Amino acid sequence: MALQTNASVIIALLMGIVGVGFVLWQFQRVLGFDQGNDAMRKIAAAIQEGASAFLTREYRVIAIFVVIVATVISTFLHWQTALCFVVGAIASGGAGYLGMYVAVRANVRTAAASSRGLHEGLRVAFGSGAIMGMSVVSFSLIGMTILYLIFNGNPDQLIYITGFGFGASSIALFARVGGGIYTKAADVGADLVGKVEKGIPEDDPRNPAVIADNVGDNVGDVAGMGADLFESYSGSIIAAATLGAALGADSAAAFIGLPFLVAAVGVISSLFGIYMVIGEEPNVTQASTLSSTSVAGRIARFPRQFVAKIDENATLEDLLAALRRSVWGASVVILVLSLLAVLLSGVHFNYWLVILAGLIAGNAIAYATEYFTSYTDKPTQAIAKATQTGAATTIIQGLAVGMMSTVLPVLIVAAAILISIWLGHKADGTIAAGLYAVALAGVGMLSTLGVTLATDAYGPVADNAGGIAEMSGLPKEVRHRTDALDSLGNTTAATGKGFAIGSAVLTALALLAAYVTAAKIESLDILGPTMLPGILIGAMMPYLFSALTMMAVGKAAHEIVLEVRRQFHEIPGLMEGTGEPDYKTCVAISTESALREMILPGSLAVVVPLVVGLVLGKEALAGLLVGTMSSGFLLAVMMANAGGAWDNAKKWIETGQYGGKGSDAHKAAVVGDTVGDPFKDTSGPSLNILIKLMTIVSLVFATSFGSGWLSF
Amino acid sequence: MALQTNASVIIALLMGIVGVGFVLWQFQRVLGFDQGNDAMRKIAAAIQEGASAFLTREYRVIAIFVVIVATVISTFLHWQTALCFVVGAIASGGAGYLGMYVAVRANVRTAAASSRGLHEGLRVAFGSGAIMGMSVVSFSLIGMTILYLIFNGNPDQLIYITGFGFGASSIALFARVGGGIYTKAADVGADLVGKVEKGIPEDDPRNPAVIADNVGDNVGDVAGMGADLFESYSGSIIAAATLGAALGADSAAAFIGLPFLVAAVGVISSLFGIYMVIGEEPNVTQASTLSSTSVAGRIARFPRQFVAKIDENATLEDLLAALRRSVWGASVVILVLSLLAVLLSGVHFNYWLVILAGLIAGNAIAYATEYFTSYTDKPTQAIAKATQTGAATTIIQGLAVGMMSTVLPVLIVAAAILISIWLGHKADGTIAAGLYAVALAGVGMLSTLGVTLATDAYGPVADNAGGIAEMSGLPKEVRHRTDALDSLGNTTAATGKGFAIGSAVLTALALLAAYVTAAKIESLDILGPTMLPGILIGAMMPYLFSALTMMAVGKAAHEIVLEVRRQFHEIPGLMEGTGEPDYKTCVAISTESALREMILPGSLAVVVPLVVGLVLGKEALAGLLVGTMSSGFLLAVMMANAGGAWDNAKKWIETGQYGGKGSDAHKAAVVGDTVGDPFKDTSGPSLNILIKLMTIVSLVFATSFGSGWLSF
Repeated sequence: MALQTNASVIIALLMGIVGVGFVLWQFQRVLGFDQGNDAMRKIAAAIQEGASAFLTREYRVIAIFVVIVATVISTFLHWQTALCFVVGAIASGGAGYLGMYVAVRANVRTAAASSRGLHEGLRVAFGSGAIMGMSVVSFSLIGMTILYLIFNGNPDQLIYITGFGFGASSIALFARVGGGIYTKAADVGADLVGKVEKGIPEDDPRNPAVIADNVGDNVGDVAGMGADLFESYSGSIIAAATLGAALGADSAAAFIGLPFLVAAVGVISSLFGIYMVIGEEPNVTQASTLSSTSVAGRIARFPRQFVAKIDENATLEDLLAALRRSVWGASVVILVLSLLAVLLSGVHFNYWLVILAGLIAGNAIAYATEYFTSYTDKPTQAIAKATQTGAATTIIQGLAVGMMSTVLPVLIVAAAILISIWLGHKADGTIAAGLYAVALAGVGMLSTLGVTLATDAYGPVADNAGGIAEMSGLPKEVRHRTDALDSLGNTTAATGKGFAIGSAVLTALALLAAYVTAAKIESLDILGPTMLPGILIGAMMPYLFSALTMMAVGKAAHEIVLEVRRQFHEIPGLMEGTGEPDYKTCVAISTESALREMILPGSLAVVVPLVVGLVLGKEALAGLLVGTMSSGFLLAVMMANAGGAWDNAKKWIETGQYGGKGSDAHKAAVVGDTVGDPFKDTSGPSLNILIKLMTIVSLVFATSFGSGWLSF
Repeated sequence: MALQTNASVIIALLMGIVGVGFVLWQFQRVLGFDQGNDAMRKIAAAIQEGASAFLTREYRVIAIFVVIVATVISTFLHWQTALCFVVGAIASGGAGYLGMYVAVRANVRTAAASSRGLHEGLRVAFGSGAIMGMSVVSFSLIGMTILYLIFNGNPDQLIYITGFGFGASSIALFARVGGGIYTKAADVGADLVGKVEKGIPEDDPRNPAVIADNVGDNVGDVAGMGADLFESYSGSIIAAATLGAALGADSAAAFIGLPFLVAAVGVISSLFGIYMVIGEEPNVTQASTLSSTSVAGRIARFPRQFVAKIDENATLEDLLAALRRSVWGASVVILVLSLLAVLLSGVHFNYWLVILAGLIAGNAIAYATEYFTSYTDKPTQAIAKATQTGAATTIIQGLAVGMMSTVLPVLIVAAAILISIWLGHKADGTIAAGLYAVALAGVGMLSTLGVTLATDAYGPVADNAGGIAEMSGLPKEVRHRTDALDSLGNTTAATGKGFAIGSAVLTALALLAAYVTAAKIESLDILGPTMLPGILIGAMMPYLFSALTMMAVGKAAHEIVLEVRRQFHEIPGLMEGTGEPDYKTCVAISTESALREMILPGSLAVVVPLVVGLVLGKEALAGLLVGTMSSGFLLAVMMANAGGAWDNAKKWIETGQYGGKGSDAHKAAVVGDTVGDPFKDTSGPSLNILIKLMTIVSLVFATSFGSGWLSF
């Protein structure tokens, strides 16, 4: 009585629609909150205008890009793949647009809500994050399921749907790489002139680049992170379905359906997790007086006990515990529901263990990341200690910590792969089943994405809220609250990056397995004639990509510096606060330079796999992907964690350690933090995109590659 | 009428003996030079004493290590392998000892010779380097050929001889990793107290760590580089012979003999190249007056025209050109002679092209390295420019340059591998022949090692000569000459590092192929159940290793700092120049801490392959090696080149750019240089050892691994 594929897909579609319903409800709820006083509204309006300018410009370029690539795809492959590509781009772009739209409106409302209390502020900011999280999940599910149903009956249908992943990847390229350059160019540019040259504080409305900087926070951690995980989420489901289809006619329907079913129940789990943060707190007195009333009342009250209780004296640890409980809550729900999904699908029980392995791996990576980047732990404190002997030792120690921090994530991912392959192999006797299991582990890891992404996308809202509170001179206790929310966001941002790269690797591996199947590669001997050159070139790609993105930040920031200097020089009374800074030009310059600077690295990510596949052959291309995946994983973790650790080492010193703010140790820590900025917000996260984009391009064009120009 | 293996091996043995003859002749020649005045002799004696203390202590630890490992090998494998292991360790250790012994005596003689002229100084220093270069080549050849002849007739003989490579690797571990920690701990420790705290110049005899620092230069670039390339040289020949033996009974003898023959003619080529630098210059007047004399006289004069002509006004470019000509001269000779070797061996002509490819690749990597690290080129100048905006941008730009600099070496090595496999495959129709060709390309790349290593090992002698000239207050024009020689040494050190890592990768790949053959692995599918976990863990190893070595430098330097501070505090009159610093304690502390800090990374390099091989199986171990090789190659090139570029960016500023010495730009450049020190002299080069050691351990124990604990 196993569920048929179509039933699973339709359930996933329905749950996607439920998710959209939540998004719409939450949308009007968040936007319904109070926007605070006029000063706050004015700043918020400038940020909204800046975000809108950025998005309009970026989406125009994306539109051109999408039309060109869709034409190429329909010329060289099929119109169906091109259609899927366009749908994938629209779905991911739409989710990103919506998330950004809300984030730059929730910021001021969070600041206003923080006047009323800490939990009030958290609810608004987290609500905004939840919109991003649930949009990503729902738009992805709806897009993929509708395409699946359209192409149903056609055996090649799943290959067409890889186009959806490619579309999502393209948006991720713009959002993560372009956005990453944008956000750091604006940040560094604003700091270099504002803090260093003019001596005005951060988030000072006189700084012409301050709005670009605030917009940038959202561009990087809302749109960028969202598109990145949209790609992983969709990619892991597509890969699992593709690999499942190859597992034999008997059970293929169940294997194809399972990832959709897991994703579907993941929507419920995520909604539960989100509820645990933003739901109404239980009123203890009321609860006790009502305890003897009707069964219905008791049932209605039952979920309330899971809602986080956050009072005014909540510490960072309390807030973190609240978010963690919500992610854990969602994990417990998904484990129960996915067991149901496995049983209903009629597949082997081992596949439930695989989903469990994926979930555990995702959480374990997040914890490992936290250990290496939190200033309550030894690694970051060692960096803070190294600041005493100057900037050089700060850098060396930070890089060493970053390198050391790769050990656990690699062991965790390696263990998850090994266990998944072993369980899949035990269940169905083939390595192919094992590779399907790896893809399913990825689906499991990402199943609660609705809530995990909410914890990430919430960060910039809180960060912006703090900036608005600062700029509009809100009372100290409000800024204290927004600071607490902001610190929480910094921590979740660091762990979120670990999760994002871990899931990117699992997704890429699953897509690679799908590529090998689709390209009909028979032997992939590691000592095959073209394999090692492929692996070496692949391993080099993340270094080239990172070099380009780091230099891009430098160039783009330089342009901002020149513009900010010009404004301070030419606009009368700007420094005194009587002149009006021209925020728009700074936003425009950041946008233009980010889009210009991403052309080269972006093109490389698409062109290199195609060239290697055509010239050296499809085996070398598989080698290329393995090389990029392994080397990129390491470099991404190293950069993200070194960056996070430098940031927090500086923050720890600012709490009064080693002389506190203004000391020589602090100056050295600022050098570390500045080096870490492009590491953790541009180059590191961009590698997630590189890894997945190269793999999905290879998968989409899998049938176009032959044995290459050299004959063996 | 093809040459039999034994004939080739005997020719190689004879050429090894010729090499030893050269070493002995050069040894008495270099030591026969004038040692300068008493002040110089006193400083030199302190350096010699320090070097001797270091070597005695290190070799004692090595002896214990060798005995233990030899016992393990003869217990679990064969006594023959253990014997080869011991011989390899003694041969490499002996070459390193001899090279160090001469280097710390040639330094003072170079300083004295520089009083007489620039070319005089170059001749002494280069003569010392040539002793190191030719010792490495000859000791390796003699050791391997004698072992080969001892085990002749036994089909397993070649597997025993892998023990020789393991022995060489073990010495390299101590020399490169331990030595790398030693040299930077002494350097950083001396600078931190001397330059920063006490404000005394570099190479000041009052600094108690100055002798440790001078010893360290030799430890790193003479003993370390020598042992590293001894390992590559021996490894590539062993791998080629092992792979050749598997190529079928008909031609196996020729295939086994060819690498020995190429190495043998390489001795002649190297000697010619060395002659081009240290030979007597042609006296133009004399030559023209004697032009009409006997034929014998004309023949005797013929080689003289190749000798470099270096006058007093020689610039860095002229000196560099002289060294380059010698390497190119040796390359031309080896090409002619190796063509002869290929023809005599009776193998396909393609194998000569393979040797050519290896030679070109080695030189191309050196050129690419020079472009990225020389301050006459754009990348390093871009770092110098970035110093204007502070330490953070200096670091970011340097890391970006380092990452960018990986592109060419990777493409060069990938092309060399691809071309070699293709040529070998075309010649003999199998991929196995292609892999043999890769090993042969490695032999070709290293065939002129006698002279290329001389250009590296010459560097620290010149560096030390400069220090001695400084400390003993020699006249300005002498210091000017030693500075010129030192700058030349810095350039060759950077290119030598590129060459070392390139050859390490080719060697490791050849050894990997030998491992796969020896372990009787049938399928190495990249999507096999344990392969990807193996690759990921392998890719992580260089990060872990680098983190440990970077932190080790920090810890060891800290101990030196405490000791130097103590001496300045406790020894009366030290700062005034009336008290005697206790150099020995600083040497002892550096030695002890270096040996202690290398235990963990060194053990990992040996233990991890064994554990992975036993637990996850022999296929996973192959994956591990591929992961380490590719990731380690990238990280090593990045670190070495970023370090070299930072160093030279600082030097460029010291020529007066951006405010020159003492400016803010210079301060930022110093931060870059300090970060670069452990990059280029400890962690980066240590990765060469990691890559090769892990592979040779796997090869030696190849027959001990099964399918691992998980069943598939």
